[in-house]
Amino acid sequence: MLPESLIQQIAFIKEIDKLKYIQRKTRLFNSDRNENDAEHSWHLAMMALVLAEHANEPIDILKVVKMVLIHDIVEIDAGDTFIYDTQKNHSNADEERLAANRIFGLLPEAQARELIAIWEEFEAGQTSEAKFARTMDRLEPLLQNTSNNGGTWNEFGVDYSKVYAKKSIMKEGSETIWNYAEKLINESVEKGILKK
Amino acid sequence: MLPESLIQQIAFIKEIDKLKYIQRKTRLFNSDRNENDAEHSWHLAMMALVLAEHANEPIDILKVVKMVLIHDIVEIDAGDTFIYDTQKNHSNADEERLAANRIFGLLPEAQARELIAIWEEFEAGQTSEAKFARTMDRLEPLLQNTSNNGGTWNEFGVDYSKVYAKKSIMKEGSETIWNYAEKLINESVEKGILKK
Repeated sequence: MLPESLIQQIAFIKEIDKLKYIQRKTRLFNSDRNENDAEHSWHLAMMALVLAEHANEPIDILKVVKMVLIHDIVEIDAGDTFIYDTQKNHSNADEERLAANRIFGLLPEAQARELIAIWEEFEAGQTSEAKFARTMDRLEPLLQNTSNNGGTWNEFGVDYSKVYAKKSIMKEGSETIWNYAEKLINESVEKGILKK
Repeated sequence: MLPESLIQQIAFIKEIDKLKYIQRKTRLFNSDRNENDAEHSWHLAMMALVLAEHANEPIDILKVVKMVLIHDIVEIDAGDTFIYDTQKNHSNADEERLAANRIFGLLPEAQARELIAIWEEFEAGQTSEAKFARTMDRLEPLLQNTSNNGGTWNEFGVDYSKVYAKKSIMKEGSETIWNYAEKLINESVEKGILKK
């Protein structure tokens, strides 16, 4: 007899394969190929592992890795929200909550509760782990856009003030990484790949 | 002044983007689109997190997650090795070691040493973490092939005995997951999607 928990976990494992089809606006490094959410989540997990020493506060790195691995799973139902979208403006919170309940709800109850709580913690952005995870989530597209001659900034007409406003929350997770990011943003203006 | 460690870590983060271009032979669930190594690594990390309770022995789950996130990074230089390939037969160990030294070597020295050691531990397959990580690595393509009418088994003429031999090491990581896998393999023969 196979344990019921395993059957539920396998159903979840099959369902989340769909994250590989969710296209982001940003493109791979030095590339015109869009990144998908599964690739993005893997990259953030690697970034969290190697950059952990720069966190402002002590962090539980396992929790940060879980956060970044699962943070976009709700997009399987709710779709990707572009950070500079002024229409949707990240107001699809209800849709995302329904998605979290449906998808994590495939798991055994205690596990579902744990992952929903971690996803909510990431969304709220208040704990040291959530702040650091969000720093990773802001850093990757910045690196991608600077490697792609402005990338989505040029493609969607996003200027310096908007980029600076969205990126400056990085300092809550890591002053050191924000110093690096701020330098990159300023250099992008100098290079003419970000309009002031 | 930015710390030297951060500059090295950013170089590593940019380099490993290339994992997103390494195509595997296996295809996504119910799909004819090949999976890439970054997607595969993300999926294994999620599997390890939700299936950890079924490990035969106590495991350090953070170490398992690190293992599966990095286990294929050497393929950026060495290329993907198909598990049923009889030519290459996983004998590109020298190539993979050079790749590990080059790619992890972009990181600060202590971090490079840690990740190379974890990669070597995975490759050796002797510790409880490595056994469980390898169970994940064998399970994902089994689930994919059964969802794809035999997938790579049909495509490359791989029969029951070869599949059984490669998959049975899963029992070293988890008897419970192996019981499930064995059932899937036998059902695949009954359904005619795996030749005996």
